[in-house]
Amino acid sequence: MNNFLDLCRETIGASHVITDAADMAGYLTDWRRRFTGRALAVLRPGSTEEVAALVRLCRQFGVPMVPQGGNTGLVLGSVPDDTGNEVVLSLGRMNRIRAVDTVNNTMTVDAGCVLATIQNTAAEAERLFPLSLAAEGSCTIGGNLASNAGGTGVLRYGNARELCLGLEVVTAQGEIWDGLRGLRKDNTGYDLRDLYIGSEGTLGIITGAVLKLFPQPKAKVTALAAMSSPDDALALLTLAQDRCGATLTGFELMSRFCLELVAKHYPQMQPPFPQPYAQYVLLELSDSESEEHAMSLFESLITEALETNRIQDAVVAGSLAQSRALWDLREHIPLAQANEGKNIKHDVSVPISRIGDFIRETDALLQQAFPGIRMVTFGHLGDGNLHYNVSPPLGVSDVEFIGRQHEVNQVVHDSVHRHLGSISAEHGLGALKRDEIRQYKSDVELVLMATIKRALDPDNLMNPGKVLPA
Amino acid sequence: MNNFLDLCRETIGASHVITDAADMAGYLTDWRRRFTGRALAVLRPGSTEEVAALVRLCRQFGVPMVPQGGNTGLVLGSVPDDTGNEVVLSLGRMNRIRAVDTVNNTMTVDAGCVLATIQNTAAEAERLFPLSLAAEGSCTIGGNLASNAGGTGVLRYGNARELCLGLEVVTAQGEIWDGLRGLRKDNTGYDLRDLYIGSEGTLGIITGAVLKLFPQPKAKVTALAAMSSPDDALALLTLAQDRCGATLTGFELMSRFCLELVAKHYPQMQPPFPQPYAQYVLLELSDSESEEHAMSLFESLITEALETNRIQDAVVAGSLAQSRALWDLREHIPLAQANEGKNIKHDVSVPISRIGDFIRETDALLQQAFPGIRMVTFGHLGDGNLHYNVSPPLGVSDVEFIGRQHEVNQVVHDSVHRHLGSISAEHGLGALKRDEIRQYKSDVELVLMATIKRALDPDNLMNPGKVLPA
Repeated sequence: MNNFLDLCRETIGASHVITDAADMAGYLTDWRRRFTGRALAVLRPGSTEEVAALVRLCRQFGVPMVPQGGNTGLVLGSVPDDTGNEVVLSLGRMNRIRAVDTVNNTMTVDAGCVLATIQNTAAEAERLFPLSLAAEGSCTIGGNLASNAGGTGVLRYGNARELCLGLEVVTAQGEIWDGLRGLRKDNTGYDLRDLYIGSEGTLGIITGAVLKLFPQPKAKVTALAAMSSPDDALALLTLAQDRCGATLTGFELMSRFCLELVAKHYPQMQPPFPQPYAQYVLLELSDSESEEHAMSLFESLITEALETNRIQDAVVAGSLAQSRALWDLREHIPLAQANEGKNIKHDVSVPISRIGDFIRETDALLQQAFPGIRMVTFGHLGDGNLHYNVSPPLGVSDVEFIGRQHEVNQVVHDSVHRHLGSISAEHGLGALKRDEIRQYKSDVELVLMATIKRALDPDNLMNPGKVLPA
Repeated sequence: MNNFLDLCRETIGASHVITDAADMAGYLTDWRRRFTGRALAVLRPGSTEEVAALVRLCRQFGVPMVPQGGNTGLVLGSVPDDTGNEVVLSLGRMNRIRAVDTVNNTMTVDAGCVLATIQNTAAEAERLFPLSLAAEGSCTIGGNLASNAGGTGVLRYGNARELCLGLEVVTAQGEIWDGLRGLRKDNTGYDLRDLYIGSEGTLGIITGAVLKLFPQPKAKVTALAAMSSPDDALALLTLAQDRCGATLTGFELMSRFCLELVAKHYPQMQPPFPQPYAQYVLLELSDSESEEHAMSLFESLITEALETNRIQDAVVAGSLAQSRALWDLREHIPLAQANEGKNIKHDVSVPISRIGDFIRETDALLQQAFPGIRMVTFGHLGDGNLHYNVSPPLGVSDVEFIGRQHEVNQVVHDSVHRHLGSISAEHGLGALKRDEIRQYKSDVELVLMATIKRALDPDNLMNPGKVLPA
């Protein structure tokens, strides 16, 4: 392989071919530090042409490639396996904003641009790029697109898929597909864009994208409502969508226990109500008119929701600080849960109309199988996406609980499947769920996926062992 | 082939296997009556299982299939060729609404449901299904999805692609892929849904779909603005999107000559202004609050647009009748143009920011090549989609003009290509543009498309000769 690495050095410069163990370390361990792989080298190309040249070299030498952006994925999709035969193809050096078009409302970017940089560039042009998620300070748009990232803006603006008009991709053959179109309508053949989006680097390497921009809202206003059940939260969702239309941009469910955990570990963070309630919903309006308009929309929504007993109490944030305090409750749930000890996370979705039944049934099944188990249920209710996390029963050790992770997953994911849902709503399959998904997808679908993989990557060199079995 | 037809009769019932020439006629000629093909038979299955059984029979006997919905396509995608070897697989009998879920905001339908039926079913459930286009009274949702139909609601709600959450497809192998998911988020593998959508029946047959529903707007208000150039229309678009956000659901450009043609052939239809202007834009707001709210949004938008000289005049429809009259202007353009004689139509898109340049440059090139040619330019400006139609110079016969159609197309489509646009924004490729597209797409993309086609339909029996060369 020395010849291979020498050719890589010739292609992209010796300083961008990393083989030193210490220098490679950050590229080999996943975000949640659950797995550390090995690699022949980490390659850091500086341009699309260099990516293409590297892919052709890898093909020539039969070297499997693991494309990597910010390495913030949650399903072991962006780290190499433990053979040491793979190379990591890190796109971090490709971080140019190529163009901003405020009339077409598009931005053309390199795949290695950090999401926050894209958000900020949009804001400087008085536009909004609405993709927003916890890792936005380090994840890159190439990874966001490869995994079809979700986040908190999906209710109004869609997933990463819906925010992309065009792609540039280096194919498994090392050719460059220039699909960087800034068009809202183009019906001239197969939808290659959406095939690459969400394919987690297994069909080709996304090197550039044309992203959709939106007008910036004039005001964002946040409210917190309290209710007695997830079904009441759903009734509020239907009402809020009807009364507020596309102005409703956030609708996040949090159970009582979630906020109790937050208050336990962050005592300054308390729900702004005199008594606890079974469920809470954080609502956000993004208004194209004014703060006054948003406030008045909220006021009439809340009045109607109280009068019709959909909710039991509510507050509207009267200032940015109050709004921040409400979002803090939501955003500190994972942190509070981590402080509490180990937990088992699930990223599931079901049809929105089944959320009440799903939570009720799955809670009961888990209590039966693991008495005293503690449910930390929260998530993007407006998208049908729950972070249905579970903490061990009091008195059960972390080690013992994590040892039963498989059983817990099985109960939750079987229930998701019965409710026609997805066991990975926004995180992807990666290496983590690649085998488990085979229980839940039909043979017809698995064969279609394998057929496409074989057709586009016949040598199985593009991120092998991710999404599909190796 | 008698054995084949007998087996078809056994599979779906003799009365649903049409071989009589007169009975087949309606299935063999395209919507614009430009081409009449021949067929071995027209097969009318009544269920997904019957479709699958027929596909397996066709495979067994090597019979190519042409899936057909309402047969309203504009690019010869739904009619058979002239060999007489193909069967038409008409899905018209599969017209059940399978389920409506007003909490999940989804409707599950058979592919053969007529679009207007779906719109009406949504309205009865107090929901909106926003796909809307001229053929909605006879086109079917299967065809809409197979061709990724556009229409007048794209600015706010997206193309057919964006309105579909899940699909049921009979594959080229005659298997049923049940992808009827009603999920907003599902990242568990390749995006097969979007691969089948827009593939015009060349990869499989769509037999069912889960569609997105939306809250019904409380009010729709229409306005007509007049300005001196397409660039001013673009400036108005940017302003309207900023001030009205997602409330803006329509933004249709019409040139002065368009409305002069309408007034000539429909004298009761006149623009509501004391003098003519170079360009007009029809704006529509769909408001989630009230008519008063929409009117006040329009008033401040128009005041600002007048003060900043983006527009020269404007009227807001004060009644349903006035609103109807404004839409009549827009909808009668194709009819007026047909009354005027033969014309050559183009369904193109460019990045919105290039529309002014595109129109200016292409108009000039056409005038140079065909002096006196008359431009009938209108379309969905908010989507960058123009129906850039041309009528012959006065005094040039229809026959002579249509004889030069190829030259006209070449000038227009070359210009579209230079402006990074699409030669088929919403109609697809079918058999009509399948060869022409090869001038404008890269070899890399054409090879990717052919690779996918070969992988999923190795015997080339699914609508052969459409999208890709036969």
